[in-house]
Amino acid sequence: MAFTVVVVGVGLIGGSFALAVRRAGLADRVLGVSSPATLEKARNLGVIDEGLLLEEAVPQADLVLLSATIHSIIETIPRLSGLVKQHALVTDAGSTKRAIMHAAEAAPGLPFIGGHPMAGKELSGVEQAEASLFEGRPWVLTPPRDTDEQGVTKLQTIVEAIGARPLVMPAEEHDAVVARTSHLPQLLSTALAASLDGHFGNESPVLAGPGLIDATRLALSPYSVWKDILDTNRDEITQAMSDFLEQWKEQHARLADNVDLRDQFGKATGFARRLRQ
Amino acid sequence: MAFTVVVVGVGLIGGSFALAVRRAGLADRVLGVSSPATLEKARNLGVIDEGLLLEEAVPQADLVLLSATIHSIIETIPRLSGLVKQHALVTDAGSTKRAIMHAAEAAPGLPFIGGHPMAGKELSGVEQAEASLFEGRPWVLTPPRDTDEQGVTKLQTIVEAIGARPLVMPAEEHDAVVARTSHLPQLLSTALAASLDGHFGNESPVLAGPGLIDATRLALSPYSVWKDILDTNRDEITQAMSDFLEQWKEQHARLADNVDLRDQFGKATGFARRLRQ
Repeated sequence: MAFTVVVVGVGLIGGSFALAVRRAGLADRVLGVSSPATLEKARNLGVIDEGLLLEEAVPQADLVLLSATIHSIIETIPRLSGLVKQHALVTDAGSTKRAIMHAAEAAPGLPFIGGHPMAGKELSGVEQAEASLFEGRPWVLTPPRDTDEQGVTKLQTIVEAIGARPLVMPAEEHDAVVARTSHLPQLLSTALAASLDGHFGNESPVLAGPGLIDATRLALSPYSVWKDILDTNRDEITQAMSDFLEQWKEQHARLADNVDLRDQFGKATGFARRLRQ
Repeated sequence: MAFTVVVVGVGLIGGSFALAVRRAGLADRVLGVSSPATLEKARNLGVIDEGLLLEEAVPQADLVLLSATIHSIIETIPRLSGLVKQHALVTDAGSTKRAIMHAAEAAPGLPFIGGHPMAGKELSGVEQAEASLFEGRPWVLTPPRDTDEQGVTKLQTIVEAIGARPLVMPAEEHDAVVARTSHLPQLLSTALAASLDGHFGNESPVLAGPGLIDATRLALSPYSVWKDILDTNRDEITQAMSDFLEQWKEQHARLADNVDLRDQFGKATGFARRLRQ
């Protein structure tokens, strides 16, 4: 039975998904919805079969992946209700899930299950797309409250077939965890680099070791990528920032008062080791 | 003319220096001063020619490298004054420089020039020693106030001959810079990991991406390595921590008040990019 995948937003993630479902033999046709320039690149690279408008592509889809920015996904969702054919499934690749699930639950009859592939690269764009991008990476699925279990099972099967590890959880849990494991490290790296920029001005410090290179890697991420994430996970992120602030103040006070940091280092090395197991 | 190097503390750095000066043809003999077990390993690995007591080795040295912990270096310095032969030179590899320079300036007639090779590995011990460890890495030299320029030139030549980049600066400047480029990133990584340990308890979060792995790499460093560094650079580190705190509070306030972080991200990406040029 022919299976058509429509990717809305053909960048690194959407393009890699297109390549991955084709390589896994899951899709007979992959249609793309994106800017004309991106669609042309994607066609030339063999990432999609055809580029179309949303209204032309979605009625042909068995599976729709929304993989543009979070705000663009939220704007696209209400337009899908009348377009999606019966037994089709819609999912997305947005980095936060609550705001997107709200939009989806407000769209009448939309067969939507949220998703977040925890994969990426330092460079973006369809030119960077790879069929293997998701291999071994977590891919979170956040079904709506009144979910269709069959849809979840189907999506899990697809995610597994392209080599990723599906994890089903509520959107609330997802957003709380990534606030701490992804958004907090990003904001720390940004704050470190911004603070050093303020101290050293336009001259890079000559005494930079590999530790500083690691610590400022996330700081290379542009604001355009993070704006929507910060907007849609503000409460969890500010809470995670407050928790960090307490830890930082404690370390600062202990150091200033000449009290040792043995406990803090012990907890930290323990956590860092468990993370690598 | 025969040239004898004495390495006091034959670990990763001391052992690598021993291998590097021999490979560069700078040393005819390399003597080690360390624990009996370490000396045996170092001899078996061909890192040193002979292991001796401090009092036996130092009188034979043309160059002494003190490469144990900072506190051990500070304790060793007063014992050297009567032992060092004429025209010999003493240097060290401690990660902070002011406390060591104070000790050296108090030692009568000691021909001492401080040093800090900005190189390392995640693993320590003489088994990890490599002749190439210092290649391309900065090696800071901190001469005392009443320095002998000849000694500085000689040491610069040796550092260059083993492939490192010598940088001469006052101990005060060194300690101020590394507080920000090395000690601050370490404490941030430790605080992040300790804060997440507090939040997630003994379960590692399943949703950890590559960003969290980078951000917690420094947190793997044990307290034993950092204790002396924190002890001897407390003022600069607490100041750097305060500067970071201001930056963090500002980001937190902006996020909580729904003000954008464009400027902070702009400064941070600029700094991170300059660091990589």
